[in-house]
Amino acid sequence: MASPLTSRAVDFPRWYQDVIARAELADNGPVRGTMVIRPWGYAIWELLQGELDARIKAAGAQNAYFPLFIPESYLRKEAEHVEGFSPELAVVTHGGGEELAEPVVVRPTSETIINSYFAKWVQSYRDLPLLINQWANVVRWELRPRLFLRTTEFLWQEGHTAHATEADAKAYALRILDEVYHSTMVDVMAVPVLTGLKTARERFAGAIRTWTCEGMMGDGKALQMGTSHELGQNFSKAFGTQFSSPSGGLEYAWQTSWGASSRLIGALIMAHGDDNGLRLPPALAPRQVVVVLVRDEPETRAAATALVAELAASGIRVLLDERTEVSFGRRSVDWELKGVPVRVEIGPRDLAQGQVTLVERIPARKTQVPLVAVAGQVAAALRSAQEQLLAEAEARHAARTTTVRSATEALAAAEDGFAVMAWDELGLEGEAELAGAGVTVRCLLRPDGTRAQAVDEAGLEAVVARAY
Amino acid sequence: MASPLTSRAVDFPRWYQDVIARAELADNGPVRGTMVIRPWGYAIWELLQGELDARIKAAGAQNAYFPLFIPESYLRKEAEHVEGFSPELAVVTHGGGEELAEPVVVRPTSETIINSYFAKWVQSYRDLPLLINQWANVVRWELRPRLFLRTTEFLWQEGHTAHATEADAKAYALRILDEVYHSTMVDVMAVPVLTGLKTARERFAGAIRTWTCEGMMGDGKALQMGTSHELGQNFSKAFGTQFSSPSGGLEYAWQTSWGASSRLIGALIMAHGDDNGLRLPPALAPRQVVVVLVRDEPETRAAATALVAELAASGIRVLLDERTEVSFGRRSVDWELKGVPVRVEIGPRDLAQGQVTLVERIPARKTQVPLVAVAGQVAAALRSAQEQLLAEAEARHAARTTTVRSATEALAAAEDGFAVMAWDELGLEGEAELAGAGVTVRCLLRPDGTRAQAVDEAGLEAVVARAY
Repeated sequence: MASPLTSRAVDFPRWYQDVIARAELADNGPVRGTMVIRPWGYAIWELLQGELDARIKAAGAQNAYFPLFIPESYLRKEAEHVEGFSPELAVVTHGGGEELAEPVVVRPTSETIINSYFAKWVQSYRDLPLLINQWANVVRWELRPRLFLRTTEFLWQEGHTAHATEADAKAYALRILDEVYHSTMVDVMAVPVLTGLKTARERFAGAIRTWTCEGMMGDGKALQMGTSHELGQNFSKAFGTQFSSPSGGLEYAWQTSWGASSRLIGALIMAHGDDNGLRLPPALAPRQVVVVLVRDEPETRAAATALVAELAASGIRVLLDERTEVSFGRRSVDWELKGVPVRVEIGPRDLAQGQVTLVERIPARKTQVPLVAVAGQVAAALRSAQEQLLAEAEARHAARTTTVRSATEALAAAEDGFAVMAWDELGLEGEAELAGAGVTVRCLLRPDGTRAQAVDEAGLEAVVARAY
Repeated sequence: MASPLTSRAVDFPRWYQDVIARAELADNGPVRGTMVIRPWGYAIWELLQGELDARIKAAGAQNAYFPLFIPESYLRKEAEHVEGFSPELAVVTHGGGEELAEPVVVRPTSETIINSYFAKWVQSYRDLPLLINQWANVVRWELRPRLFLRTTEFLWQEGHTAHATEADAKAYALRILDEVYHSTMVDVMAVPVLTGLKTARERFAGAIRTWTCEGMMGDGKALQMGTSHELGQNFSKAFGTQFSSPSGGLEYAWQTSWGASSRLIGALIMAHGDDNGLRLPPALAPRQVVVVLVRDEPETRAAATALVAELAASGIRVLLDERTEVSFGRRSVDWELKGVPVRVEIGPRDLAQGQVTLVERIPARKTQVPLVAVAGQVAAALRSAQEQLLAEAEARHAARTTTVRSATEALAAAEDGFAVMAWDELGLEGEAELAGAGVTVRCLLRPDGTRAQAVDEAGLEAVVARAY
């Protein structure tokens, strides 16, 4: 049975939509730009949440929850912030049958409301660092929505912290970038990412420095997968978040904020998918293995059931597909679409020879395996699938990254990958020129791999690409 | 150091507010009726979510996520539903800087939007049952807000299912009531609950039958802790959720919906708290044990650190309180307020005799324990605390439940507990009379403990109480 998808080579954005529909990941919501995350998509999100949440907690942050509704006046307290978010706001004007005295905004992000509490909770240097994270939905009105990548409402985590010194805030922003985001993206999602500094043009509204994770998608475009901001004292001054220092003085806190969202599911689709559908890294596959009952016949069923029990007992997320009323071809296509890393097909003919068929998604191959050896081979296949996805993505990233000498060359290279050029040579004018053509500086890096300290530091490289 | 709380006997609602503030569970939000859930409160919620979620999945439902914003017109499709929710809606009239053509409502619950998708996803009896749950925030404008109990925005799970027959829908609504809600409330929260049928007056707007879990709080009032609704075909007819039956006909699906919310944290506070603060069942304590370093001195610290490691290794959620700059009395009061079940105080004087002090919150007692025996005693103390909380709550429930013969007697009994009287005798008029005095029928039960099948069935008992 042929793949029901548009080929990536023919129309990548259309392929992306097709995968989401056919793998039953999401649907468009009735209100423009909103999204229904269907069970298969949500199960991926739950696994991703678990990985991020464990790392966030390991970095010392505690979860909390702040209100969805923010008084409009709060947004206006930080000038750049309100300017950045005003065009995207959803505004509640009526509540409980009456017009509200002050309209409230549905949070586009929570710096303002969280700072209004930090100002109450932080009194002394002993209260610092204050490390808070929340899992929440946020709303930013989208004119050109795309499922998972840019939706009017999306799910995310947003961290907000307050520190006694700028150095401590910076170190924490980078710790999150490395230990939470980079680690999850590379080790779990199998997507290599560049972690660098945003230019002033691309930085978060209200931050003094924005650090970003940029991944390359299957068509060579960039996706911003997570950001960690140093907010300086912008919000602490706007909201009066002050602490008494050990020497008795009153100082404004230094802050960070950082977020990653359901957009990461879009990254998984676009980084790993092929013309047969999604390819899930085993670490994020809601079902790592599907045991397919080819025909419903007592011995076959007994063998399938025993294998499912054996795999489940060893901690593998496994499902028995016993829908023998649906054609075998249709079921195979469905599991390929959904990106399940390994299928084990158990039919009477194979079984008569003590064998089953092991079907790997990554790389695509079929092997006849003795029934007694299948559990071991499944475990090996899952390990190798996780590694191979990362290796493939790394190879693409390397192959499609070109060093260039001019904005014109950068534009050409950005047609199917990343361009790297000297930031000193590109400059703000070059950046503006590229932006006019829809190409942006994704981040600034030091050639030696150490962290850039400022956007105007000499010798930085700019990574330039088209982005989702 | 004396408790900083108002005594429960003096002013129970004030005590409730005091506990929330002093145990740092939550704060009021800036928009009327909204709430900030602080880390200690949110950590309880995460544990509760985990318990509910595991049971929901065990009952076969899958998590998904539907949009926050619902077109106003969707609400109007089910007549009783819109009538019930209209007074409580928050309405977004502006998005992205423009007035919206159709205002959108912030979900007060998701029957309507979810049914609009069920209508697309359900085609054949083979698609049934369709069992969906979502974890989400919802908004119902509150005129008399109270933290956790009635807030304009709250966190909850809402399950929505579609079935081929009324019997299957009913069985599933009751399965959730028993295997998810009753089990979590009794076995985890240690709060006994009555699970019965709501009267027509108290039933969910749009349901044909509402099943409820009613717990008794420390002051004898009732709290509705979770509900499971049979929706009949009300929503499937409103939204056209139809399936082809095995015989080829087209039928409307039978549906359920069910929810439990962050209100459960209010239940924990009010069911178990005492004049020293919260008392957490160990199953829901973010920290089950706090090891208190009495003085910072090398041997004491070494012993405390080793004990923390030993307890953590055995799966206990344990924290080392090494804030020796804060007075010992203040720290003791704080952990009592926060409801930590067990403290182990390690000081140089005890340690010199090879001992530590074990402080149990439930029941309140201090014991000198040899250091070598402490891990075992801690585990025993946690088991007994969980059991004792339930036993105490059960004893109160029994002691404060009175059988009565008239509405007048019911009113009197409802002053400090539950009244039980024959529903045939109370009747709709009696129910209305009680409601005028702020007393409601919490649920209808069969005297023999089996499930009532209809509100007009003969011989039912009405449980009558004041409620939060």
